[in-house]
This record gives sequence, structure tokens and C-alpha cells, in this order.
Amino acid sequence: MADVAAAAGVSAMTVSRALRRPDSVSAEVRARVEEASRRLGFVPSRVASALASARTMTVAVLIPSLTNAVFIDLLAGVQETLSPQGYQPMIGLTGYGPEEEERVLRMQLSHDPDGVILTGLDHTPGTWDLLRGLTVPVVHTMDLSVEGDLAAEGQDGGCGVQAVGFSQFDAGYAIGAHLAERGRRRIGLIAGQLDPRTRQRCDGWRQALRDAGRHDPALELMVPDATSVALGAELLERALAAHPDTDALFLCNDDLAQGALFQCARLGIPVPDRLAVAGFNDLAGSAWTLPPLTTVATPRRAIGVEAARLLIAGMEDRGPGRENPRRVDLGFRLMIRETT
Amino acid sequence: MADVAAAAGVSAMTVSRALRRPDSVSAEVRARVEEASRRLGFVPSRVASALASARTMTVAVLIPSLTNAVFIDLLAGVQETLSPQGYQPMIGLTGYGPEEEERVLRMQLSHDPDGVILTGLDHTPGTWDLLRGLTVPVVHTMDLSVEGDLAAEGQDGGCGVQAVGFSQFDAGYAIGAHLAERGRRRIGLIAGQLDPRTRQRCDGWRQALRDAGRHDPALELMVPDATSVALGAELLERALAAHPDTDALFLCNDDLAQGALFQCARLGIPVPDRLAVAGFNDLAGSAWTLPPLTTVATPRRAIGVEAARLLIAGMEDRGPGRENPRRVDLGFRLMIRETT
Repeated sequence: MADVAAAAGVSAMTVSRALRRPDSVSAEVRARVEEASRRLGFVPSRVASALASARTMTVAVLIPSLTNAVFIDLLAGVQETLSPQGYQPMIGLTGYGPEEEERVLRMQLSHDPDGVILTGLDHTPGTWDLLRGLTVPVVHTMDLSVEGDLAAEGQDGGCGVQAVGFSQFDAGYAIGAHLAERGRRRIGLIAGQLDPRTRQRCDGWRQALRDAGRHDPALELMVPDATSVALGAELLERALAAHPDTDALFLCNDDLAQGALFQCARLGIPVPDRLAVAGFNDLAGSAWTLPPLTTVATPRRAIGVEAARLLIAGMEDRGPGRENPRRVDLGFRLMIRETT
Repeated sequence: MADVAAAAGVSAMTVSRALRRPDSVSAEVRARVEEASRRLGFVPSRVASALASARTMTVAVLIPSLTNAVFIDLLAGVQETLSPQGYQPMIGLTGYGPEEEERVLRMQLSHDPDGVILTGLDHTPGTWDLLRGLTVPVVHTMDLSVEGDLAAEGQDGGCGVQAVGFSQFDAGYAIGAHLAERGRRRIGLIAGQLDPRTRQRCDGWRQALRDAGRHDPALELMVPDATSVALGAELLERALAAHPDTDALFLCNDDLAQGALFQCARLGIPVPDRLAVAGFNDLAGSAWTLPPLTTVATPRRAIGVEAARLLIAGMEDRGPGRENPRRVDLGFRLMIRETT
């Protein structure tokens, strides 16, 4: 490092800062340090530096799955925020299971991360124990529900559990209320995966229909399978075969809704005249379906960015740290297009 | 660790193995060790253990982007193979840029990974320098082209550059030949992103049309923008406005092709009667479009699995290590559906 500093005409401390946190020095200094490092073949060792500083510059990020585009967007937001500050995300996949989450977290913690980002607030008691014992900051994402708050209550060791997300219940309620306002009378539900956040949005939809006096539990079709376009096509047929008078459907993820629209076109079912269709998440392509899909746009990329920001503030002891706001609600948007 | 070993009734070495590589002990021993670890609140420190063993149990994985589903599938294959062996992937995003790749690799190497997986073979001289200087194994993915081989030649320090993938050129050729065999005379191309692998599949398509005596460069529409459903819809209109006699189109990624199909439906263009449409990658939903999309199924998840397997063999000095096969070709499948 002394050689690089001499070659770049800066102090060793500046070299360290330029490599560890590129944004903390000017572009010109960064370029000189990078050029000198390249020329001299210098690669700083994080492992040695972790011993000196007790920091590994890694962050554990636990998400349910890589096959759901929602978590890819969350991850992209986290990555684009951490990376310029020199932090390296380490991704753990929980498979939507709290026990697997605890196992993966335990493995992640053995790498001594400087911070932890988790999905949801539905953790095992063992996971809460691990989190309570940490001296590094933790941010939870995606879940801002009352159930989530109850789960988190008393788990914070008095320090406050931080969460960034939106109200899945309110978003589900908005879709249910929208379908009722459109004058639909036989409004069905198709849901897959059934993780806590999916259940919350179904609860919201159900409450809206109850408030409108139009809830019929027989019109709910809920399966544990992972959502997909193919599953949406299949469940659309099942739902209509069981209840041919259904005149509106809420599908709990856009891939299901896209599959349902394809199947309606195949079966000659006019949308929205005969059947209104609404999805959730505003995934890629949903503005382009035939007709364009009514859905709820969810801010998962922004959630990733904000969670990473809060974590960085905590890791670098900037700002109020654990006195930060306990809940950050980034909201959602009802996207009314042509399927309703 | 001694306490956990005593509580679980096994040796400290077995505890170490059970936590480091869960698959190396029986399910019953693993359960006992995990139970004892949980009860005693034991989390092994990788940082301390890295000093002892000179291993960090991390693997650097460099991919162009998280927004292209192809690399998510590659990553899923890598993760599902590394994770049961106790290795933690660290993801670096190159933004499709060789210079950014070098910068990100440099940062990743500062974490002392036990192995490196890269996308493609189009690296900067600086990246090749870094790779040549490594004592840990490296596997390249996705590119098995002649150009890739030329790029890799002489960069291996005599050790052999390992690559797992399929021939993008041959896959593009297969699509071009298929469209020509269908009797189409005015066969156009729509391509985005234009990374080396996209260019290779366009080269293959071009060669097939030349061999059939039907190549017209005027029918090629290539833009540098990231591919998307929206871009496919837009470029379909542009291509047909410029050359209304086009009777077949190859779109270099399925998201483009899906957008083109939506736009054909909107504009009342019958597919395949008036216009044949073919995509690439067989992305989610492509079997469900109207009509179902002809495309090429690419084995990106299997590539991730095989790359991780080769890397593990090298990291654990099992098998022939650097004498492993230099090129692993996992092939591709032409999926002839109804759009051609």
C-alpha cells in the first residue's frame, strides 16, 4: 500500500479510503490510485484488513428466492446502494421457510457481516435470538403489517426493529375496493405461494369485499405452489369451471394474471366485458398484455435502496443509527389499465 | 467449538466439518451438531478460520446484470450448487462493460475468494492479468466461441482457461436455417444489448441466411438498448415501417419477441401467416404467448451448476483440477412452436 501511495502521490490512508469507499475521495484521486494499483498489481486483502478494523465490508442479504422477480428488484436496489460504498452483499436464499432462513442466517453470520438485511418479519425464535445477539445493524424489508409488528414486538432488546416496506394489506384492500367499485358482484381470488405477505394482501382484498357486502369464500382458490404464467392459465380454468358466474378475479401476482389473460384469449372469454382481471406487483410486460393489466405497482427496488441506506448509516455510525425511524412506509400505486 | 462437540457427542473436527460442509456428514450427525450449536449460541467465525485455513469459503461470481433473467438462472444454478457445500457466492455486476468488470473483480479479489466464476471470455488485459496471478480456480461461462477461444489463448499461463456454455453462433444459425426452411424470403433481425454473445448469435443467423442465399443487411435492426417487452413492441413497428415486405423476424431475446407478438396482435398482423416470429432463450411465459413462441432453449441454469461443480473440484483439489476439460458444451434446443 505504501508503494501505491508513493506512485499515486497520496498518503497510504488516502489509498485505503479510495479502495475501501471510492465515493469518499475525488474522481481524480480515485483514478490515480486505481491506475497505480493496476500498474503495481496491488490487491488489498479484506481478510487482513478485517482483523485490523474488525470489519469485513460484507452484508448478509436474505431473500426467499431468485425465481420471483420481486426479490431480484429488491436485491438490485440493495446492490446498487451498497456497492459504491465498498460493501459486498452476500445473498442467502431461504426458500420461503423460516427454519431454512435460520439455518442460512447462521451460515451467513459465520462470515462476520457488517450488517444484515432480511425479508419479512416472520422469523423463528432462533432467528430472533441470533439477531438480538448481534452488534451490527439489521434491517427487515417488505412487511409492515400489524402481524409483523406483533412478531417483532419484544424481539428488539429495546433497540427497535427497523423495517422498510409497504402495507400489503392496504394494497390488497385497494384492489378489492376497485373491483367492487366497478360494479362486479362475483369477485374471485386466485393465490399461490401463500407466504405471509401474500396472505396479508389476500386479507386486505377480503376485507374490502366484506365492506362492500360481496365476499363469498367459495370464490377463493388458494394453492401453495410457486406462482407462474403456466399456473395462472391452469387456475383460471379451474376457477371458472367451479364458478362460471365469476365476473372478476384478483390474482395475487402478475405472472398468474398474465397466464390468466392468455388463457382467456384462448378460451374466447372477453376481458373485461365478461371477466375483469387484476394482478399484483406490476411486473415486466404487464403494461403490454392484451388488454393491458390492472395491477398494483410495488416499490421493491426503492425498498432495497432505502434498506441499504439505513444499514449503511448504522454501519458507519452516521446519523441516529438505531434511533432511526422504526418503520419506513414507501407506499404502493394502483395502476388502473384496461382489464378492469 | 469444544463445548458444541461435547454437547453433540462428536469430535471438534466433526463439528467443523458439519458446519463447513454439511453434506460431508450424515443427516443425523448434522442435526445433533446444529441442535447443540443452536442451544449454545455458537456461530463459528469464518474470518478467524480463514486465517487458520487460508480459506474464506466465498466465491466471486461476476454477471452483467440482475435485470436479464438469463443471468438470474445462471446465478440460481451456481447458488444451489455452492451453498450445500458451505460456499457463499459474492455477486459482482459488470453492467456488460469489460472495464467495470475489471474494477469489480479487483474489489471482489480483496475479499480473498476461494474461486471465481465469470461471464464470457471478453475481458480486459488487466482482468486477464489478475486472473493469471490467482492461485484459486477460475471458470468462465456462457461463451464457447472461436472469438472467445482467441481471446483466451495465451492468457492461461499454460494452465488452461476453463469455460462452460454453449455455442451462441450455432444456436443463431439454427434459428436462421429454420426460418429459411419455412420458405420465408424476407427474413429480418431485431437485436438489443449487443454484448459479445448477442453478436455471436446474430453472426450465426446471418451465416444461415447467407448459406440459403437470402441475407439482406437492410433487414437488420440493431440497437444498443437493454432488451424489454416494450422495446420489442417499438422495434417491431419500426422494422415493418421500413420494410413492409418482411415475412419473418428473429428477435435476439424472448422479451423482445414477446413484445413484438403483443404489437402484432394490436396491429392486426397475423402470426405466422403474414409474419413468422422467433425469439431466443425460452424465457418464462414464452410457451404461453399467442401463438406460442418458437425460440431456442438455452441451458443457463445447468451452466451455473456445472461451472460451480468444476470450481468446487478445483477448490477442494479433488479430480484433475486444472487438467479438467477446458470446454464444456451443454448445447441448446430449438423449440419449434406456432409462431413459425
